[in-house]
Amino acid sequence: MTIVTRLAEREDNQLPARFARSRRSITTSAMMRTEDFDTWFAARGRAHRFTVERVPLRNLMGWSLEPGSGNIGHHSGRFFRVEGLHVTIGAREWQQPIIVQPEVGILGILAKEFDGVLHFLMQAKMEPGNPRLLQLSPTVQATHSNYTGVHQGADVKYLDYFIDPGQGRVLADVLQSEHGSWFLCKSNRNMIVETTDDLPPDDDFCWLTLGQLGTLLHRDHIVNMDARSVLACAPMAPVEAGAVHSDTDLLSWFTTERARHDVRVRRIPLADVRDWVFTDDDIHHVANRYFRVTGVAVHAGNREVTSWMQPLFEPIGVGLCAFLVHRFGRVPHFLVHARAEGGFLDTVELGPTVQCTPENYAHLPEHERPPFLDLVRHAGADRIRYAAAHSEEGGRFLNATSRFLLVEASEAEATAEPPPGFAWVTPGQLNSLSRHGHYLNVQARTLLAVAGLWSGRL
Amino acid sequence: MTIVTRLAEREDNQLPARFARSRRSITTSAMMRTEDFDTWFAARGRAHRFTVERVPLRNLMGWSLEPGSGNIGHHSGRFFRVEGLHVTIGAREWQQPIIVQPEVGILGILAKEFDGVLHFLMQAKMEPGNPRLLQLSPTVQATHSNYTGVHQGADVKYLDYFIDPGQGRVLADVLQSEHGSWFLCKSNRNMIVETTDDLPPDDDFCWLTLGQLGTLLHRDHIVNMDARSVLACAPMAPVEAGAVHSDTDLLSWFTTERARHDVRVRRIPLADVRDWVFTDDDIHHVANRYFRVTGVAVHAGNREVTSWMQPLFEPIGVGLCAFLVHRFGRVPHFLVHARAEGGFLDTVELGPTVQCTPENYAHLPEHERPPFLDLVRHAGADRIRYAAAHSEEGGRFLNATSRFLLVEASEAEATAEPPPGFAWVTPGQLNSLSRHGHYLNVQARTLLAVAGLWSGRL
Repeated sequence: MTIVTRLAEREDNQLPARFARSRRSITTSAMMRTEDFDTWFAARGRAHRFTVERVPLRNLMGWSLEPGSGNIGHHSGRFFRVEGLHVTIGAREWQQPIIVQPEVGILGILAKEFDGVLHFLMQAKMEPGNPRLLQLSPTVQATHSNYTGVHQGADVKYLDYFIDPGQGRVLADVLQSEHGSWFLCKSNRNMIVETTDDLPPDDDFCWLTLGQLGTLLHRDHIVNMDARSVLACAPMAPVEAGAVHSDTDLLSWFTTERARHDVRVRRIPLADVRDWVFTDDDIHHVANRYFRVTGVAVHAGNREVTSWMQPLFEPIGVGLCAFLVHRFGRVPHFLVHARAEGGFLDTVELGPTVQCTPENYAHLPEHERPPFLDLVRHAGADRIRYAAAHSEEGGRFLNATSRFLLVEASEAEATAEPPPGFAWVTPGQLNSLSRHGHYLNVQARTLLAVAGLWSGRL
Repeated sequence: MTIVTRLAEREDNQLPARFARSRRSITTSAMMRTEDFDTWFAARGRAHRFTVERVPLRNLMGWSLEPGSGNIGHHSGRFFRVEGLHVTIGAREWQQPIIVQPEVGILGILAKEFDGVLHFLMQAKMEPGNPRLLQLSPTVQATHSNYTGVHQGADVKYLDYFIDPGQGRVLADVLQSEHGSWFLCKSNRNMIVETTDDLPPDDDFCWLTLGQLGTLLHRDHIVNMDARSVLACAPMAPVEAGAVHSDTDLLSWFTTERARHDVRVRRIPLADVRDWVFTDDDIHHVANRYFRVTGVAVHAGNREVTSWMQPLFEPIGVGLCAFLVHRFGRVPHFLVHARAEGGFLDTVELGPTVQCTPENYAHLPEHERPPFLDLVRHAGADRIRYAAAHSEEGGRFLNATSRFLLVEASEAEATAEPPPGFAWVTPGQLNSLSRHGHYLNVQARTLLAVAGLWSGRL
């Protein structure tokens, strides 16, 4: 950071208007008509050979169970490991396998103005765990191993914009958590960098406006988790007349939630994890709930490394992530839930109103099921403002599909005192919090991206 | 949080002006003339019997070394423990004793307007480790054990304002870290709550303006660490014409610093910590550097519990915490240092330009000493804008004194490219960050409190 004596404005007040202009470009853009997207996307799908086969966990080449601990690791010592975790949250206590990957990856989207409108460079990328293999990912999606060359593969395209600060103008740059139920303290760097360079075109990349991306977010399995997470961090700063709680009260409520939760975790040998069954094929829960640890073999034509095997976490059942939405004084609010998850670095983060796999609760009576689950499941079509199926990071999770919903709350539901741990918050407040890490979990970020790219009246 | 349909303003735009008015009340106030403070304070010192004696670590009643691990704990299992920590930061690696206290305490200051000026209720409180026993503490300074009654002592006065959200108006409420070199992932809740209640007067408490507190901060050992930390979180929002780096660039630089540091810690049995010597009296480093773990016996007349013994960490030597200060385009900036400390929850936090105990580096050649240490130590009086000695939390640390300095940087020093890990940041930017946890370490917060309560031109 070279020192200049001309001062910068602390905030770029033009930026929200520039994002808003890009959000209004829905059907066409200087680079691609929205109706042409499917043709281009299908062509990218045909252009590459990419096959995924299931492989028994015990037969994963390059990976081994460590003698004694039974932890799963790569022979290079890099990438990630599967270990055991003992979690105590208040009176609840359990053990589970967990992914340990203590390194920061980069999820970066390159932005550029064409005809006065910001466009975002998205990559058509296949991941072995994706239910629909090809999805739109950020321009760069690199693990630390990727960008330090542990793969011994090809260079990551456009990476320099995200690791050399002089190459562009940073619009957002924040460490955000990943799934606290599956990852131990994992975070990735979510970045948006603007460039004015003439960039060489590349077949697997396309420039899209926020309006076009917003449209694609209404379809199933097009925009991948990493892209959704980065888009949630875009500084939209929507203008809102006010909020149910002032920002200070919201932060105070969040601090209370963090202080009142006692979350303790202890890493344990994977072999010692109780209530989980180890077979040659997989590791699964005795009641067949939660997830399985399984393996795949991948053959890819356009990747840094063209074939590999790896473990993946495969959730049992389809998840449900929903915000209840209500307008207070004409300002939309979401009902957030301060969730404790064992893998969070700091006790709780804000998640959707409902975030669970309903099947895991099917055996319980209604009063033991998560608050609002039945309300959301039985909401009529007239109350559903948004519904789409998206999957989680296909490099670690196999067919990890959730239905993401925005469900309108009735006046009575909205004005009732919310249960402890829940609060009504505006999208603008969530967007302000997304500038900082440790506030919003990855599921909330998907729904915040939907809200941020929304066209018209939310 | 009851739901109302009248919306709140997201930010209270009156608040910075109200804080500024309190800051301008320097010599007098509705409650106490500044010149009367010393008389009142001395009287409080005489009012209570409070003695501290050194006791060999092995003879601390109520505390024991656990068989096997050698960890030090209280027989109740509460308060805090001393364990061992193995720290790896990049290529550096060491072991040390560390305080483990995984619970959130409350540091709360009650605020109230008198004659239209905000006053803050400060408590004259003795702590066994304070070099000057009596200091000004927040209204409430309560460990989790305090406020859940593990002491079996008297109630904590005014506590309800900080644990019952309906009792007042929250002005600040944030979890902030404590010393990353001495505590493992410790955080406390820093709160300011405004009330309009008529409060019963109490002998050990007095109402002071920010201007009066700012004056007292210029004197040695009057305002304790907890009070300084809370005052740093007061939402001052100083008006600044701009900054060397925009807020987005600052956050991006901070994210880079966090991502580039690899900090790994592992709890180990205290008995296994290498390079430390265990005697009946204490635990100390083989080279007599860093700190000793020692014990004290306390007899107090006005505390929840009237006599107890406890371990304390006693630093070797006097610390030095200094910001280099420079005006860029007439806006004051501090040179912050992104510091990795083994006990931080998340890799790095922003600290002063220089933060160390110079004696620990006396045996090293200049180029191996911390950047700017010699510059700060040899700065002439004409460059020193602020200098005072303050001590750290006297409930855990014995005679932990540091000199806190603001030292003017020359034009040449300020416009040179700062070394990696350093950046010029305005007090306003630091104040914005102090609304959130994990950004500012406790030493930086002391100097931010000094800046926030500064009268006149910084």
